[in-house]
Formats: sequence, C-alpha cells, structure tokens
Amino acid sequence: MRKVAVLGVGCTKVGEHWKRSLRDLFVEASLRAIEDSGVEEIDGLYVSNMASGPLQHQEHLGAVMADALAVNPIPAVRVEAASASGGVAFHEGVKAVASGMSDFVLVGGVEKMTDRLPPEVASTLIMSEDQEYTAYTGVTNIGLSAILKRLYMDRFDVKPEEIAMLPVIDHENAASNPYAQYPFKTSIERVLNSPMEADPVHLLECSGIGDGAAAVVLGPANESETSDHPLVTVSASAVATDTLNLTNREDPLTLRAVRGAAEEAYARAKLTPRDVDVLEIHDEVSILGVLSLEDLGFAEKGKGASLAASGAISLSGETPTNTFGGLKARGNPLGATGLYQIVELTWQLRGEAGKNQVDGAEVGLAQNMGGVGSTCAVNILRREDL
Amino acid sequence: MRKVAVLGVGCTKVGEHWKRSLRDLFVEASLRAIEDSGVEEIDGLYVSNMASGPLQHQEHLGAVMADALAVNPIPAVRVEAASASGGVAFHEGVKAVASGMSDFVLVGGVEKMTDRLPPEVASTLIMSEDQEYTAYTGVTNIGLSAILKRLYMDRFDVKPEEIAMLPVIDHENAASNPYAQYPFKTSIERVLNSPMEADPVHLLECSGIGDGAAAVVLGPANESETSDHPLVTVSASAVATDTLNLTNREDPLTLRAVRGAAEEAYARAKLTPRDVDVLEIHDEVSILGVLSLEDLGFAEKGKGASLAASGAISLSGETPTNTFGGLKARGNPLGATGLYQIVELTWQLRGEAGKNQVDGAEVGLAQNMGGVGSTCAVNILRREDL
Repeated sequence: MRKVAVLGVGCTKVGEHWKRSLRDLFVEASLRAIEDSGVEEIDGLYVSNMASGPLQHQEHLGAVMADALAVNPIPAVRVEAASASGGVAFHEGVKAVASGMSDFVLVGGVEKMTDRLPPEVASTLIMSEDQEYTAYTGVTNIGLSAILKRLYMDRFDVKPEEIAMLPVIDHENAASNPYAQYPFKTSIERVLNSPMEADPVHLLECSGIGDGAAAVVLGPANESETSDHPLVTVSASAVATDTLNLTNREDPLTLRAVRGAAEEAYARAKLTPRDVDVLEIHDEVSILGVLSLEDLGFAEKGKGASLAASGAISLSGETPTNTFGGLKARGNPLGATGLYQIVELTWQLRGEAGKNQVDGAEVGLAQNMGGVGSTCAVNILRREDL
Repeated sequence: MRKVAVLGVGCTKVGEHWKRSLRDLFVEASLRAIEDSGVEEIDGLYVSNMASGPLQHQEHLGAVMADALAVNPIPAVRVEAASASGGVAFHEGVKAVASGMSDFVLVGGVEKMTDRLPPEVASTLIMSEDQEYTAYTGVTNIGLSAILKRLYMDRFDVKPEEIAMLPVIDHENAASNPYAQYPFKTSIERVLNSPMEADPVHLLECSGIGDGAAAVVLGPANESETSDHPLVTVSASAVATDTLNLTNREDPLTLRAVRGAAEEAYARAKLTPRDVDVLEIHDEVSILGVLSLEDLGFAEKGKGASLAASGAISLSGETPTNTFGGLKARGNPLGATGLYQIVELTWQLRGEAGKNQVDGAEVGLAQNMGGVGSTCAVNILRREDL
C-alpha cells in the first residue's frame, strides 16, 4: 500500500446559497482544492452527497460533476453514507491512491438543503434511519438524539449547562471562520433559552440546514514534493457500522461504530487519543458530540460533557476541538460535512488556520457519522516534517 | 496491488417482488454469494443502488444492509452511478481488496422499482441525466435512445430488423435462465410489432421495470484455495465517464466512456476483444447495446447491428453475449444490473452455466453503463486453470 497525502483542500462558505446550484458549489470547492494542490491532472473523482435524489431530483453525481469540471473521461463515482458520506468518500479515495489504481484523486462533497421547505428536508434527513422500523413512525433525527440526551443526563447526573458548552465552544471558534454558516458567539444561557426542538434538546444544540461543498486532492506521499505547503499525510482511515435502531443496541449511550472505527484507526496509526493535537467531532446534535468525545477515547463514559465544560477542548485547551465551528456553527451540509472536517484539519496541520490556529499541531483526527452513529468514519492526518 | 478473485456469487430472480422489501432481496442474494464463496467472515461491504432515496425513502443503504446481514461493525458504503452502480461498486470492491485495506469484501446491488407507479419510476430514472439541462425538459431515457437510434439508422443505412436481433438473442438466452424476468422467446416480428415507446424505439427493445438483487464476494486470489469452484480472477477493472448531454458530444453515436473504459481494461489485462469468450453488454435499450458492441471493439462503427444479425453473438456464435438474457430479458434492476453481469460471467467461467454454458469459456467481459453512456464500467474476469 502506498502512503497517501492530502495535497490540496478547498471549500465554499456554508449558507443559504439560493442562487447557486449543487454544481456551482461543487465546482467552486473543487477548483480551490485543485489549485491549492498544484496537481495538474487528477485521474479519479469521488463525490459525496446524501440526498440530491430526493432534494434536487438528480442522481449520478459522479458523472455530473466530472462533466462540470470537464475532467472526463476519468472514473467518477458517488459515495453515500448519509451524513458520513464525506468521511467515507475520503476513505474510498485513500484506497484508490493506496492501491495504485489512481494517482491523484479529487474527493468532493456537496449538499444543497435550502431549496426545499423544512418538512421536505426533515423527511429527507430521516432517510438516514431505517425506514421500515424507525423513520415511518414520524420521529426526527433530533428526536432520536433527545432520547439519548434524556437517558444520558439521568444515568450520569449531568446538567444541561455542561452539555450546552459544546455549542458555545463551536460558536466561539466559528466567529473567526469566514466559511462558517453561523459566525457569531453564543452563551450557555442563550443555548438553554432557545426553543425546545425535541425535549430536552434545544434549537441551539442542533446543526442547521445549509448548503455547501468541500473538497480535497489526494496523491501518493512520495510524489508530493512540488507542493508549497508542509506535507500532510493520512496516518489511518477507518470506517465502522452499528445497528441502526437504538432499541437493538446493547447500550444506546455507547456508539459502537465510533469505538470500532477509532480503535482501528489508532491501531493503524500507532497513536492514542493523547497524541491528537486537533480534533473534529460530529456534533450534529450536541449530545452526539458528547458521546463521540467519550467513544473516541477523550473522556470516560459519562464524562464527555464535563470535559467540554472544563475547557479542555476549547481552542486554548489540551485538545482543541471543532476549531472552525464544528457541525453546529460551521454548518452541516450532510454529504460535504466530513470533507469540511478534513479541509480544516489540513489547515491546522499546515499552520494555515489563521486566527483559529492551534500552535504546533502535528496530528489531527476527524470523526464523521451517518445516522445516530450507525456509520462512523475516523480519519487521522499527520504533518510529516514536525 | 494484490490480485483479486471472485470467490462467490448469488442473485434473486428479477421480477415484481411486491411482497419483499429492498432488504429481503439484498439479503437473499448476499447469503447465496457468501455461502457460494465458502468465506466465513467478510470485512467490507459495498451496496450498489441508484434510487432507494426517491423510491423507498431510504438512504444510508450501507449501514442498513450491514445491519440486515448482521455483519456490523464492518465498514459499509453505498456506491451510486445510476444504472452503472453495480459495475462501479465492483470496481470499488476490487480496490479495497487490491489495496489490502480489506480481505473479503461483499459487493451487492439491489433495486426495487415496482413499488411505485410508472410515472414516478420514469421521473426517477431520468435522474441519471442532467436535471438542469436535459431531464427538466420531460424527455425520458428511452426518448434519448430514440434520438440515437434514428441517427444510427440514417447514417449507417441500418434496418430496424437488424437492431431487433439483439432483444431476440436476449430472450432466446433468458428462456433457460431461472432468474430472468422475461424467460420466453420472441421474434423480430414481435419486436417490431410491439408498441412504439419513443419513435423509432419499440417496447420490446427496452429493458423493463423490475426488482432484484445480485451479489459477489471478492478476496485475494492467493488465499482462495479452500473454494470448491474453479478460480475466477479479476484481470482488469476500469471506469470512465463522458459528458452527459448528447448535444455536447463530438459524435453522439460514439460512447466515449465505453471506449475509454474498454481501452484501459484491455491494456491492463493485456487482452483484445478477440480474447473474450463471453460478453455482457448494457443493452438498456437495444440501440445502446449495438453502440456498445462497437465501442467495446467487437464491431466497426455502424456494424454492431449486423454483427448481431450475423449470429456471431448468439449462444453458439463466436462471442456469446448476454448469455442469461441481458438487460432486456434477464431484467434491469438498475443498481443490481452490473452485479448480475458479474454473477453470470462467473457461472460461465466456472462451467456452472447449465443450459446456457459456453464451452471452455476462459475470459469474460462485463460492460455496465449509467445514463446514456455517461458512466461506463468494464470488468474483465478470467478462469485461472485453463
């Protein structure tokens, strides 16, 4: 297997891009990533997207985006794993380069969610859950997270204020991210006074509906000498799954897919959570971010929220997390989300993160989930020259 | 790169499975493939499907099917490239094993099209074309093929009777295939007297609407000694793309993606069309099969239909084609179609094709398309002990 490097990255601002199409957004992010990479010719394309079929009546996005980028006849394919599509597409791109079947691969994610009315978006989002057992009941994704939050607070005697620190940290970091959907600060009081979406989950604990695209260029690490940037390589890429239905899980508060992907990634990279200098977690709803901190190994079970409340994952803390705002504040355009994480980690590892820079960051980890933890991708990046 | 083998194959009958879900069909095909392979544990899952979002309101099929098969926590991902999803997913599975990131991978395709009314299915099918430039006009996939057929007959002075030989051959072969949707013989007269779908394309030149699933197990070729079957390996796997809109193509009668994928696959396998003993072509509409025969190198441009009329691609001909009925008569459940082709080629190469057996078949080629040739996967298989 060849060692794989992240050679270029780019993204659009997350927002309500009513005048721009799926294609416009994808091309903008992709051209930025290609230019950033210095690569002259890509020979493979992965497009990650969850819901362009239901929302834009467009499938076959591999061919559509290869066409829009005028990179035909290179192989192009869409990868879908709900909101884990981006992290999983990255994983597939790594395989393509590692296997030698491709040399320079563009992995781009895109989602456009604001073209439709909220009920349509909600009924599309829940397509990440099992239609025959869960989705048909009318429950929402946030509703499922609410069950977990209630159970978590009860079992571990955790206060809402502790969990509310996660969106506060996200918004703090997003305030200086020009690509963020919600670049403003908030407070625990505002989070807990925001409307109840699904009791006990408040509006400001939920990622919003947004449009966006993010892309990366991958290539073999030893052929990357032409780049102007410090070399960032892929130390490990792992994907794992869990049963979809919460009632089938031995413990609904343990995200087995997160644990599985993390354990495999740490083993492949020969690293532990202590080695991670900068972290991206999938906080689609804040409680999912809390559980993720635990199942990634950064806190014991029941201690994820207090970790956030302690300041350890703030920008100046021990393990700065969601340094550009995370799903809550940078935004969560489903199929693009996992690639925003990779873009942001790459900026951090290169030392190009501006006001959000974590000094001397050498190892970064991105965790991207589909459904309520039924798919998880964990990708670990490393700056090579430190 | 490791050499990859097809260790197990399985499929369901194609048909109107009103009482069976997407999951039921997928599991049936997958369990058959796993049992056939003798493999005790798979460590990767690829699910190919085009349209479960619009048709079943279910995305995230990787996790859903991993759950249904109880193979969690292995990595699982859905691959989509319209009706080329199966061939492209196979390509991804080959990369996973070739790269060493997985050892034993299940690649399964499924589609369920008969749950919905025909207008809904038609508006889903056209999601394979560019929504902003083509699909929004109201044209159908068959309508686009009709443009090509008219142009083809005019330019090369080809008679409808010649093109109609392709569905006749398909139905001849399907008649002895227990998994075929339309297992009966037909005739040139019946084809040309069938209703006009989109002038000059007749109903019996079009693949139908059907449900089905097909699956294969891949593994490293050198660890496959436990199998009871003759060893079938992957000589080459290539994917290529073309611009979607026919008006943007230099010559609409040349399927550039087919040429590109075929040239790459022949080069990697060090083979020519003359070496191919058994062939699967993507005849979603008969004219597309004719063009494919040409762009795969089996006939000069303009001679594909006369090749079919000559008997050369019949079961007893020089290059038996669509030996289990092809898209027209075995059926075309979109995301599963490319994997039906692999299943059938594997049966042929193993000598397990029963009444449809091509004697001494050593090399097989499968061509699977998405859209009107905007994605093409070409996979070449070989029996190793001949």
